[in-house]
Amino acid sequence: MSQVSPITRTHIEHELAELGLSLPNPAKPIAAYVPTVRSGNQVIVSGQIPVVDGKLIAEGLVPTDVTEEEAQRCARRCVLNGLAAVFAEIGADEGIVKVLKLGCFVASPSDYGNHPFVANGASELLAQVMGEAGRHARAAVGCSSLPINAPVEIEMLVEVGPVG
Amino acid sequence: MSQVSPITRTHIEHELAELGLSLPNPAKPIAAYVPTVRSGNQVIVSGQIPVVDGKLIAEGLVPTDVTEEEAQRCARRCVLNGLAAVFAEIGADEGIVKVLKLGCFVASPSDYGNHPFVANGASELLAQVMGEAGRHARAAVGCSSLPINAPVEIEMLVEVGPVG
Amino acid sequence: MSQVSPITRTHIEHELAELGLSLPNPAKPIAAYVPTVRSGNQVIVSGQIPVVDGKLIAEGLVPTDVTEEEAQRCARRCVLNGLAAVFAEIGADEGIVKVLKLGCFVASPSDYGNHPFVANGASELLAQVMGEAGRHARAAVGCSSLPINAPVEIEMLVEVGPVG
Repeated sequence: MSQVSPITRTHIEHELAELGLSLPNPAKPIAAYVPTVRSGNQVIVSGQIPVVDGKLIAEGLVPTDVTEEEAQRCARRCVLNGLAAVFAEIGADEGIVKVLKLGCFVASPSDYGNHPFVANGASELLAQVMGEAGRHARAAVGCSSLPINAPVEIEMLVEVGPVG
Repeated sequence: MSQVSPITRTHIEHELAELGLSLPNPAKPIAAYVPTVRSGNQVIVSGQIPVVDGKLIAEGLVPTDVTEEEAQRCARRCVLNGLAAVFAEIGADEGIVKVLKLGCFVASPSDYGNHPFVANGASELLAQVMGEAGRHARAAVGCSSLPINAPVEIEMLVEVGPVG
Repeated sequence: MSQVSPITRTHIEHELAELGLSLPNPAKPIAAYVPTVRSGNQVIVSGQIPVVDGKLIAEGLVPTDVTEEEAQRCARRCVLNGLAAVFAEIGADEGIVKVLKLGCFVASPSDYGNHPFVANGASELLAQVMGEAGRHARAAVGCSSLPINAPVEIEMLVEVGPVG
């Protein structure tokens, strides 16, 4: 295994700014659980929905109610919310070693098949912002519905470690 | 990391009794797999459905066939079955250090959005019975259907360790 | 923990040949992610769909468009693709210690309940080919739809280690 330094919050914020994006304040879970749990060097991130300041940025099924391009933006927003949750969990002297896995859930009808396009909104952002450390395993599936009628939900598993 | 003693079976049984609940006998998988797999200090629990003595306590979609309150009870039953499976896996001198993650699947139609309410049946029970060790990461999603028409299915990931 | 030697690629290929099956060339992901990620002694395998040479062997919902027997074959194909991905990830001197977990997604309508039968196509193959090391935890659920209209998708978590 190569000794690569973890990706810091500062680095990610800089890369996001280049894309006109930023890390949000960590979102509160909408129910009786916690946003992240740490087990050793792994952080498990709860399912993230595309909320900004607690409000969904789109609502309903893909592609019926929400276009695929909007759904890609939703996937990106889920990742931003997830990264914010990771940095709220770890120490100031830690960073992200590797994004291990994304679970991407797309609310969609029975004849839909373009879930990978939607989930790429998440995957491509992570690769842009974190390079090799952002390249992950992934499963994308269609759901009959999602919490508060979100079009997309993403769960993350991340490896973290001390910086420098 | 703080040194907290793992939660024992005895403790959980005592807390459940206060709520008028108890740990069932571990349920047999309904197919060619095993109820739990251990990897290091983690126990992976197969998807649990709300069966009592091998029979579903409710059947069909939420909220059409099964009310949300019934579905919450189903979620609670899935957790009881899951905890029973964990204690069947680990040694008598071990306990649960932390519930790391729940995956909550709710069979529901395309206009449903209250999955977090249903999943809270599981999450709140774990917090009641195990305190901080029971607070977990979670993803809740809607499924078009579930095995033997169960309204709810829950998978668990749990960290275990020696007691005392 | 017993000291069992990991299952080698050679062993699996031999067992598959007895069943008239073989390991395919590792499939390319159909989007911006990687087929496998390694974290310590675990390999996380991205969601696999039943493609042969990049083409689905069946398409649509179970049991409406795809019979349950065809869907079982799809599940088996997903596992073959997943095993190929694992051996592309690990070293030539390593093997599979244990299949830890399968997530089995079956595209199916709201009145379907036989997901375990479909997923058994995957689980039984692993047990046949790898014995005890192939027996895993599992969650099987129904999805409204899957990528490129696949009837089945399977994600895997596998423990690996040095041989001999």
